[in-house]
Amino acid sequence: MNENWQEVKNVAEKWVEEAGKMLKESLHESLDIQTKSNPNDLVTEMDYKIERFLTEHIEKRYPQHKTIGEEEAGQHIGSTDGVIWIIDPIDGTTNFVHQKYNFAISVAVIKDGVGKIGIIYNVMQDEWFTAIEGDGAYLNEKKLPVATPVNLRQAIIGLNGRWLAREKQTDEKSLHELVRKSRSVRSYGTAAIELAFVACGRLDSYINFRLSPWDYAAGLVLLKETGMVVTDFQSQNPPLLQQSTILAARPELHEELLSYVYNHKGFDY
Amino acid sequence: MNENWQEVKNVAEKWVEEAGKMLKESLHESLDIQTKSNPNDLVTEMDYKIERFLTEHIEKRYPQHKTIGEEEAGQHIGSTDGVIWIIDPIDGTTNFVHQKYNFAISVAVIKDGVGKIGIIYNVMQDEWFTAIEGDGAYLNEKKLPVATPVNLRQAIIGLNGRWLAREKQTDEKSLHELVRKSRSVRSYGTAAIELAFVACGRLDSYINFRLSPWDYAAGLVLLKETGMVVTDFQSQNPPLLQQSTILAARPELHEELLSYVYNHKGFDY
Repeated sequence: MNENWQEVKNVAEKWVEEAGKMLKESLHESLDIQTKSNPNDLVTEMDYKIERFLTEHIEKRYPQHKTIGEEEAGQHIGSTDGVIWIIDPIDGTTNFVHQKYNFAISVAVIKDGVGKIGIIYNVMQDEWFTAIEGDGAYLNEKKLPVATPVNLRQAIIGLNGRWLAREKQTDEKSLHELVRKSRSVRSYGTAAIELAFVACGRLDSYINFRLSPWDYAAGLVLLKETGMVVTDFQSQNPPLLQQSTILAARPELHEELLSYVYNHKGFDY
Repeated sequence: MNENWQEVKNVAEKWVEEAGKMLKESLHESLDIQTKSNPNDLVTEMDYKIERFLTEHIEKRYPQHKTIGEEEAGQHIGSTDGVIWIIDPIDGTTNFVHQKYNFAISVAVIKDGVGKIGIIYNVMQDEWFTAIEGDGAYLNEKKLPVATPVNLRQAIIGLNGRWLAREKQTDEKSLHELVRKSRSVRSYGTAAIELAFVACGRLDSYINFRLSPWDYAAGLVLLKETGMVVTDFQSQNPPLLQQSTILAARPELHEELLSYVYNHKGFDY
């Protein structure tokens, strides 16, 4: 079957827009019942609700397609054959419930393991980061330029302080040394948006020690379209059916950063 | 002289809005000449231009008032007597030039050392964080609620990774331990916006080891209005005429965090 990816993307965006409205409304309502409700209940409820909303639409319109989502409402999937939608109903749940700000809906469509569509919707700021394979990546209506080189001294790195606080290595390839050599670091608490920020150049790299496919699947499509490199810490393509480390960066910077994380021993959780 | 602070604030907002337009236009124009221009030239030029724009308006309308700004276009000031405007024409210059995103114009008006007006304008997201002493703080048209308690385990802390990477202490009151005990950390690369985020509850605390008065003067007014506590690491009021450490937080959290930074030995620069 030859899918019309532009049409699939248009339909997906319509659903995501509706889902975004549901999230905004839930935050608005929760302001009134703040004293009664447990914030964690809200995020659990909305995570589930949004994922069901999206998977039901997908199943109805594209019955041959499969879905994978954070809430595991989708079928159990053992291979990447066929068309799979990988969904994060709320990326940045802590931000959602605590900040009511800086969270996203992330939707990827892959076929036989290859990313075809990526949509990352920054709900409260109404920013759409989208891409179709081979057609470039966009921020709202604006096509994003292809990545140009930046060295570590000029680079802004997306890296959460939690990894720095857990760092035990002290050699010249430690995370601390990486931060000291970079221009600066940022952390927004939402992998999907941070990968989108790399795609649009607000960050030059994003590093995370443990993510799930729904956190990065849409980001992979966007980053490929802007000439960025995304791998795990061993320079392999990130898996789409299991957790992974993630190193996303401009091409030459990626190579440089890889030397810092390649042998990283990871962290106890 | 009895100032009408509401009127002063209205006038200041009008100037800041115009200054924001100038910043947006400069980014728009710089896209076209990117290959020719040095990004650092742009930020130096616009920092100076915006500060001159604001100080000239202030001098003309309020000839008795003094000004302090990052670019030191203002007079040399040895005391906080009288009315002083403390101006940061671009807070988050790295973001401005590198991200074209997440930077602010910060304006405070103080009288005899007491903050009267605070304005932090997040230019690209068009968010206005404003306050008049005794009249509450606002995000756009919405009055911000007064701070409620949050303990460290629930708290999101604004803390840049650079401080974690420079940390040499390893005891139980290290920054690393603080991060491990908190719910999470964030870093946006702009002190003015991060202080505004504490005022509106997106962050529960913001910690910085070296800031200048123009980075935090407007934030102080906002935070006081929402019942937050802002001091230096020795629990003193931050000075308005010299650099300082900054610890801003919800009241009880502030006390807890103070124990982590009170004896901090600082960093080599």
